[in-house]
Amino acid sequence: MIEHWWQASCRGLDERARQAALARDAQLTKPSGALGRVDALVPQLAALRSDGHPSVDPVWISIFAGDHGVAAEGISAFPQSVTGQMLGNFINGGAAISVLARQLGATLEVVDLGTASPVGPLSGVRHLALGAGTANFVEGPAMSMDICLQAMQAGRDSVLRAQAGQAALFIGGEMGIGNTTTAAALACALLECDPHYLAGPGTGLNASGVAHKCAVIERALALHAGNHDTLGWMQRLGGFELAALTGAYLACAQQGIVVLVDGFICGVAALCAVRLNPACRDWLLFAHRSAEPGHQAVLEALNAQPLLDLGLRLGEGSGAALAVPLLRMACALHNDMATFAEAAIAGQDA
Amino acid sequence: MIEHWWQASCRGLDERARQAALARDAQLTKPSGALGRVDALVPQLAALRSDGHPSVDPVWISIFAGDHGVAAEGISAFPQSVTGQMLGNFINGGAAISVLARQLGATLEVVDLGTASPVGPLSGVRHLALGAGTANFVEGPAMSMDICLQAMQAGRDSVLRAQAGQAALFIGGEMGIGNTTTAAALACALLECDPHYLAGPGTGLNASGVAHKCAVIERALALHAGNHDTLGWMQRLGGFELAALTGAYLACAQQGIVVLVDGFICGVAALCAVRLNPACRDWLLFAHRSAEPGHQAVLEALNAQPLLDLGLRLGEGSGAALAVPLLRMACALHNDMATFAEAAIAGQDA
Repeated sequence: MIEHWWQASCRGLDERARQAALARDAQLTKPSGALGRVDALVPQLAALRSDGHPSVDPVWISIFAGDHGVAAEGISAFPQSVTGQMLGNFINGGAAISVLARQLGATLEVVDLGTASPVGPLSGVRHLALGAGTANFVEGPAMSMDICLQAMQAGRDSVLRAQAGQAALFIGGEMGIGNTTTAAALACALLECDPHYLAGPGTGLNASGVAHKCAVIERALALHAGNHDTLGWMQRLGGFELAALTGAYLACAQQGIVVLVDGFICGVAALCAVRLNPACRDWLLFAHRSAEPGHQAVLEALNAQPLLDLGLRLGEGSGAALAVPLLRMACALHNDMATFAEAAIAGQDA
Repeated sequence: MIEHWWQASCRGLDERARQAALARDAQLTKPSGALGRVDALVPQLAALRSDGHPSVDPVWISIFAGDHGVAAEGISAFPQSVTGQMLGNFINGGAAISVLARQLGATLEVVDLGTASPVGPLSGVRHLALGAGTANFVEGPAMSMDICLQAMQAGRDSVLRAQAGQAALFIGGEMGIGNTTTAAALACALLECDPHYLAGPGTGLNASGVAHKCAVIERALALHAGNHDTLGWMQRLGGFELAALTGAYLACAQQGIVVLVDGFICGVAALCAVRLNPACRDWLLFAHRSAEPGHQAVLEALNAQPLLDLGLRLGEGSGAALAVPLLRMACALHNDMATFAEAAIAGQDA
């Protein structure tokens, strides 16, 4: 019996399209597999998109912003007011993801799940007002179960809009001062891992800042100790934007939209999504390995090999945006290269 | 006293432009350095291009093709006729680099330095006819010094055409059945390294094929043993396209065009260029770490940290082309993002 929407089936993969892509790849005027990871992307995209000549366009980017009560513990190098201030920067085109979305010709939507400093209403931002940020999870649950479910639904709603826009690729981004602490805490709970392995500098903490962040996470894990399921941990430790990303990834897998997962926080949301409905894993491509040390453990838990490793630690979906051209060029190579027969070129010795 | 053109000075770097780029970067609405390697590209590009708001466009791609006498030793999985056959594929748009050049809006020129199987003349290919491929270097020098100098000049000529086209970024590609053997032999000589560390499968040799390739290189190194300078090694072991790439990289550094170096063969050409005129090193950006095992040693000798690591082993400049969007997006982020002041956003805590 299905209790929640995300427990419904994910879209199945089209193995005939995968085989068609593999067969075509073997005919293209290059040694088989000579483009390594780039070549390997295409059969997977073909199976996901049910198209032997796949495309990742149009690209849709949803940014989910939310504040974190745990910021009161002094775990970020930036003041909490930045979360709300960045909303305007996203829609005014000045943020990193705004520039990248323009470069890519991607749709960018901005979803304000709830910030600590009131902003707006801003034209072009969806203000969902789930609360003035989450509660401080070292003192109690970050949010109620009802709010957690609303945040997940907000992510799904974005995906349904992306689907209405014919999106082939979905990128979720996040903005929320304190959210590497939230993500690290949640990853510690899900992976049963010590905070010293998963907490890092975030936007720029020094060593003593990281040590303090670890201590804060340890207090939270002690407070919430218990045998909770994934949803229970999300409600106790998760952020609004993390729950929205989780819902978005699950909805993408159900609706048949390929996901390009960004960095550490998105990786933890992907881990939550896979725990909630393991079949969604097929739909998740991983853009990059973040500079945030906890990301590696999350990637390993997801058996994910990211495309880029550039020391990124910005968030906003920026690392995923940087990887989009690789997907586009992989598809273009597959779809537009000549075959050995077409070019009258001798093939590889048997 | 200057004996050869490439011994003349390379263009100097503009440190004021680098400082201007660094100062602007610190004002942009992101934590400083949060885009890691992407952020780090811009000050270097600014210094090279003498522009605090740098660009890498227009992009120019020159493909240098040549055959290798050592192919007679059976060191490639493909027949030697492919080198010439691919010339038509490059200009007809069916090769990987043709597709990528279109995607990037880059100029693509094709230079035939000399192939074993006569082709053409093909409209759109520059046929230089330096010979029907090099001589087999296990039996004697690959080419005369005069031909080696002509091949280097051919690379320089491409760069002068790129400069006439206002190119900001130069990509050299190569095509030549047998050229991973040539590149490995030359790298062994320059790095005083055993072939077992540098010879690899190339386009698709199995283990016994690689062992045979090593043995062929050992015979060549024994035949040519001696205290040769870089030019002497290039003449004895190098390929036409490898010498052309070396000349091109040196000319770029003199003319002020940024180079994006492709994979293993291009890496060995870069090593030759740096040995001939060390100041050219500043002008070389490295696109990717190839699947060819010898590439790692070459990158280390050049103190190079490539942008991508995707298991590529195609050549043609394809790996460099795949990295171009990262350079473009790095420049766009730097030039188009808002500053904290412009966006009225609080900065990082002091």
